[in-house]
Amino acid sequence: VAVCGSSVATDDELARAEEVGRLLAEAGAIVICGGLGGVMDATARGVTGAGGIVIGLLPGEDRLGASEHLTVALSTGMGETRNGLIVRAADAVIAIGGEWGTLSEIALAKRIGKRVVGLGTWELSRAGLAADGILKAKSPEEAVSLALEGG
Amino acid sequence: VAVCGSSVATDDELARAEEVGRLLAEAGAIVICGGLGGVMDATARGVTGAGGIVIGLLPGEDRLGASEHLTVALSTGMGETRNGLIVRAADAVIAIGGEWGTLSEIALAKRIGKRVVGLGTWELSRAGLAADGILKAKSPEEAVSLALEGG
Amino acid sequence: VAVCGSSVATDDELARAEEVGRLLAEAGAIVICGGLGGVMDATARGVTGAGGIVIGLLPGEDRLGASEHLTVALSTGMGETRNGLIVRAADAVIAIGGEWGTLSEIALAKRIGKRVVGLGTWELSRAGLAADGILKAKSPEEAVSLALEGG
Amino acid sequence: VAVCGSSVATDDELARAEEVGRLLAEAGAIVICGGLGGVMDATARGVTGAGGIVIGLLPGEDRLGASEHLTVALSTGMGETRNGLIVRAADAVIAIGGEWGTLSEIALAKRIGKRVVGLGTWELSRAGLAADGILKAKSPEEAVSLALEGG
Repeated sequence: VAVCGSSVATDDELARAEEVGRLLAEAGAIVICGGLGGVMDATARGVTGAGGIVIGLLPGEDRLGASEHLTVALSTGMGETRNGLIVRAADAVIAIGGEWGTLSEIALAKRIGKRVVGLGTWELSRAGLAADGILKAKSPEEAVSLALEGG
Repeated sequence: VAVCGSSVATDDELARAEEVGRLLAEAGAIVICGGLGGVMDATARGVTGAGGIVIGLLPGEDRLGASEHLTVALSTGMGETRNGLIVRAADAVIAIGGEWGTLSEIALAKRIGKRVVGLGTWELSRAGLAADGILKAKSPEEAVSLALEGG
Repeated sequence: VAVCGSSVATDDELARAEEVGRLLAEAGAIVICGGLGGVMDATARGVTGAGGIVIGLLPGEDRLGASEHLTVALSTGMGETRNGLIVRAADAVIAIGGEWGTLSEIALAKRIGKRVVGLGTWELSRAGLAADGILKAKSPEEAVSLALEGG
Repeated sequence: VAVCGSSVATDDELARAEEVGRLLAEAGAIVICGGLGGVMDATARGVTGAGGIVIGLLPGEDRLGASEHLTVALSTGMGETRNGLIVRAADAVIAIGGEWGTLSEIALAKRIGKRVVGLGTWELSRAGLAADGILKAKSPEEAVSLALEGG
């Protein structure tokens, strides 16, 4: 399961991310994230605190800026194009808050047919689109439950 | 300039894409697109019809499904992750209509600081976001003008 | 540390790969490989047998053909271009036997300044090149020792 | 056709690269290269001097260091991993001289079944490998002829 969110986040988003990380680890899921700060770091802290495995796919050529809570930090050297790798490698994506990078992960995940769960993230609309196809969760528990359902 | 849009598009979107392609070529801009059908094919037809150069960055490992109107068809073998390459290579992005793939290109382009012009594309909102930062165009002329302004 | 080698390998190469995996795990190193069969599978078996962590970066869009001994199987959907990711993510590369894919990993690793150790792999020469810059190991022990030295 | 070679090259290699570029353009082939200096720049000069089209796939996030002789300079932001894109996009590869980057392109091209022509490039050997499978050319004319034969 991939957890996506911005490096700049509110306290509430960080708390939710850590809780999502903890719940995923307890459910035995391996977690993938962007490996940097903010939501990514909080998620990693939640995962490793619960004894789980979390992989960070970093944008840079080295591990600069990597969260210290990752089990493994993998430098991709692909910049933001690495967002496509994060969602490709995951079975489901949980998006928490988020800025443009997170939106790109939501969109790429939907494009390649992955299950996407939103927790206080973007609202999307387009002419002719009845619903945006993102599963809306109200809590970390619901987000994790929705993400793992399809696994 | 990159022009993004879906392989499934309305007649109106196709007409606008061809017109955008023609105008970009007349302005001397090199056009980059996803290289397949629909909006991508119509854009390419507009560009080459006006004597311009249009590069298609294809998702597959070969040129299967490539528009016949491309100057050059480049297979990337990266699937939808190639969307990151399209916006990275461009100075500005024009999004026409579009489905999830187009949204991912809008988001990635905004994420890496590129100018994004929308022509009948997604409406986005997020708590705490005053405006979505996409320049809204009402016509192909306005879209091309907005895209080239920042060049 | 990345361990590279072909999916088609001799019994001797497979035995060496498993031993390299075991020694790396015992040294506490995280192992990265291409995630498929042959040398990759044998390495993964060695790592997990010794309680270590091994990540497979798969070429395909799904986990088809992945070794069952991986701690985490990450689909990249980038085909052989994923070889660049394997060496980018590693601090050192051990090449065992190997065909063209392995040679590409050796060359990419040298190109970006990574330490490369060869265990019965390619011999390279070029006009004007005094030595090929690959550290030659005679045994799995020596390969692991050379790879970790620079860490 | 892709032409590969190092940014640091001898006068003889540069003259051969320019001649290869010219001959490919005269044969109507579209040329792909790494877009930087040395062999890449000389090839591009040969192509555009003969009125052909040459695309440079640059490693960086912007066009810094791009040859001024390219028809189109595409920034990939993927570093040396872009070498995989160069050979994926081409039908055949001509390697001129070259350092590690060129060797990675030769190996990746062979790995994915592309025709590879060498012009004063690496000599490769491996236990159990009768021949290295690279077509050896003695002149730019022979290199271009061998590269286009399989088209």
